[in-house]
Amino acid sequence: EKVADVIDGKAIAAQLRKEIGQGVESLKAETGKVPGLAVVLVGSRKDSQTYVRSKKKACVEVGIKSFDADLPEDVSEDELLKIVTDFNANPEVHGILIQLPLPSHINEQRILSAVSVEKDVDGFHPVNVGTLAMQQRDPLFVACTPAGCIELLQRTGVQIAGKYAVVLGRSKTVGMPAALLLQKLNATVTVVHSRTPNPAEHTRRADIVIAAIGKAEFVKADWLKPGAVVIDVGINAVDDPSDKRGYRLVGDVDYKEARKVAGAITPVPGGVGPMTIAVLLQNTLKSAKRTLQASSSS
Amino acid sequence: EKVADVIDGKAIAAQLRKEIGQGVESLKAETGKVPGLAVVLVGSRKDSQTYVRSKKKACVEVGIKSFDADLPEDVSEDELLKIVTDFNANPEVHGILIQLPLPSHINEQRILSAVSVEKDVDGFHPVNVGTLAMQQRDPLFVACTPAGCIELLQRTGVQIAGKYAVVLGRSKTVGMPAALLLQKLNATVTVVHSRTPNPAEHTRRADIVIAAIGKAEFVKADWLKPGAVVIDVGINAVDDPSDKRGYRLVGDVDYKEARKVAGAITPVPGGVGPMTIAVLLQNTLKSAKRTLQASSSS
Ligand SMILES: NC(=O)C1=CN([C@@H]2O[C@H](COP(=O)(O)OP(=O)(O)OC[C@H]3O[C@@H](n4cnc5c(N)ncnc54)[C@H](OP(=O)(O)O)[C@@H]3O)[C@@H](O)[C@H]2O)C=CC1
Ligand SMILES: NC(=O)C1=CN([C@@H]2O[C@H](COP(=O)(O)OP(=O)(O)OC[C@H]3O[C@@H](n4cnc5c(N)ncnc54)[C@H](OP(=O)(O)O)[C@@H]3O)[C@@H](O)[C@H]2O)C=CC1
Repeated sequence: EKVADVIDGKAIAAQLRKEIGQGVESLKAETGKVPGLAVVLVGSRKDSQTYVRSKKKACVEVGIKSFDADLPEDVSEDELLKIVTDFNANPEVHGILIQLPLPSHINEQRILSAVSVEKDVDGFHPVNVGTLAMQQRDPLFVACTPAGCIELLQRTGVQIAGKYAVVLGRSKTVGMPAALLLQKLNATVTVVHSRTPNPAEHTRRADIVIAAIGKAEFVKADWLKPGAVVIDVGINAVDDPSDKRGYRLVGDVDYKEARKVAGAITPVPGGVGPMTIAVLLQNTLKSAKRTLQASSSS
Repeated sequence: EKVADVIDGKAIAAQLRKEIGQGVESLKAETGKVPGLAVVLVGSRKDSQTYVRSKKKACVEVGIKSFDADLPEDVSEDELLKIVTDFNANPEVHGILIQLPLPSHINEQRILSAVSVEKDVDGFHPVNVGTLAMQQRDPLFVACTPAGCIELLQRTGVQIAGKYAVVLGRSKTVGMPAALLLQKLNATVTVVHSRTPNPAEHTRRADIVIAAIGKAEFVKADWLKPGAVVIDVGINAVDDPSDKRGYRLVGDVDYKEARKVAGAITPVPGGVGPMTIAVLLQNTLKSAKRTLQASSSS
C-alpha cells in the first residue's frame, strides 16, 4: 500500500539553521559584527516564557546575539513603546520580536506598528503585509510560520507555480500570509475560513493544502485529492490517557488516514513547528546583512 | 427566456454622488469647512488628462474643493515629492490623488508611499493594503474601483458572506484589493491570474465573479454557474467599423452570451466605470469627516 512521503521538518529546520550559522560566520568575518535579535516578553505566561527561551537558545546556537526585555505584566503601554523605540534606534539590534499575546491593557496593534519596518522580523507590520500582497513589490520580512511552510515545500521540491492551493485559516500570523505567499509564487489560491460552508469542496481539488485552523484532526482523508501535498500547521492538545502527560499533540489534519491519500505530508510534531524559529533566525540574519553590508559598502 | 438583471452602475453611482453631496453639506454646516482633494498630474498623456478633468468636475458637483498640481513631464522626483509632502501638510487637503502612470524616470512606489496614510484616498499605500488584508484591522481607505465593485454588490442586495467568489486578476489597483475585500466580508475567495492553468474550472463554481484582467470578452457564458452575479471591471477597445469612432468598448466578459446564464451582470460601459470616481469622492469625504469632526469635537 502506497503511503505519503513524510516531510521531515525537524531535519529541514536543522539544515536551515546550519546554513544560518554559516551565514552569521561569514557576516562576522566580513564586517566584524553579528546579527542581534531583541526579544520582548511581557508578563509571566508559562507558554510565552517557553517560546522565548527556545528562541534565545536558538539564537545562541547560530551565533546571533539576543537582547532581552522581560517586563512585568503591569508595564504601561508607554513604557513598552519606549522599549520598542529604543530597540529601533539600537544599531546592534537587527530584529525585534514582541512575544504575543500582550496583556489586555496594552494595544497590541499600536505596539506592533511601532516596530521599525526594517526590524520587523515577525513580518506583522502592515507595511510588510501590504507589500506581501502586492505583485510588484517585496516585503522586507514575511511572518515566520507561513514562510516556514513555503520553505518546506520548496526544499522538498514541490512545485508551486501553476498549482492550485487551498489554505484553511486566514489569521494574520499564519493563514493570510501563507495564502499571499503562495499567490506571489504563482499558485492559484483559495482561502477557506470559519464562514466557508463546505471546506471539503475546495480542498478536494487542491494540489497543495495548508491547514492552519487550530481544530484537532479536522481535515479528513476524503477531503484530499490523491497525491496532494499537505502542510499541517495546527498544534492541538487532545486527551490521551496512554500518554504520561495525559495528552498528545495532533495537527489540524487526520494524519494517519491522510497519509493513505496524500502524496506528501508534514507530521505534528516535527513538521512546521521547528521551521518557525529557524525562519525567525533567517529573517534576523537577512536584516543584519542588509544593514551591515550596506554600511560596509558605502 | 430568462436573462440576467443588469446592474446599473450609472444609476447607483449617481445615487452615491447625491449622498456624498448631502454629506458635504452637513459637514460644512457643522464645521464651516469642505473636503479638499489634491489631484496631481504629471505630463500630458491625453487619457490621464481626461481622467483628471472628470475627477475635478465630479468634485465640483458634490462641493469638494479640488487642488491642482499640473506638472511637466520632466519634473524631477524630488520636486514631485516636495509637492506631495506639501499637500500632506496642508490642512485643507484631505485626500491626495496621484494620477498614474507616472513618467518612467520617477519611482512610482516612492511617490505613492510618500502620500500620508491619512490622505491616501486611492488606497494604494502599503499600510492601507496591509490592514485591508488583516482580519482584525480596517484600512483607512480601500482602492476606489474594487470598493466600487463591492458597493455595487451591496446596493443591489447581493449577499457576500458565506458565498464563493472568484476574482480574475490580482493587480494592486483592482484584483488584489477586490479579493481582500470580499474575504473581509466573509466570502470564500479564489484569485485567478495569468498563471492559472484553467480559469473556467474555478469560475464555474462561483456565486460571484469579478473579472479584472483587461482581455476583451475573455470570460465566456459557459464559464459561469447559472445565476451567478458577474461584476465586469474590464474596459477594452475592440475594432468596430460600424461605430463612428471605429471601435467600441467591451468588458472582460462576453456580455451578450453571459446574460443568458448569469443572475445579474454589470454592463460595459455603465457598470463599474462610474463607481470609481464616486468612491474617490466618498473616500475624500470620509477623510475630511475624520479630520474635521475630530478637531471640532476636541
Ligand atoms: N509554529 C507553529 O507551528 C505554529 C502553529 N500554530 C498553530 O496553527 C493553528 C492556527 O493558528 P492561528 O492561525 O494562530 O489561529 P487563529 O485562531 O488566529 O485562526 C484560526 C483560523 O482558522 C479559521 N477556522 C476556525 N475554525 C474553522 C473551521 N471550522 N473551518 C474553517 N476554518 C476555520 C478561522 O476562521 P475565521 O477567520 O473565520 O475566524 C481563522 O481564520 C493553531 O493550531 C496554532 O496552534 C500557530 C502558529 C505557529
Ligand atoms: N474604473 C474602471 O472601471 C477601471 C477599469 N479597469 C480595467 O480593468 C481591467 C484590469 O485592470 P488592471 O487590474 O489595472 O490590469 P493589470 O494589467 O494591472 O492586471 C491584469 C491582471 O489580470 C491577469 N491576467 C492577465 N491575463 C490573464 C489571463 N489570460 N487569465 C487570467 N488572468 C489574466 C494578470 O495576471 P498576472 O498578475 O499573472 O500578470 C493581472 O493580475 C482593464 O481592462 C482596465 O482597463 C481598471 C481600473 C479601473
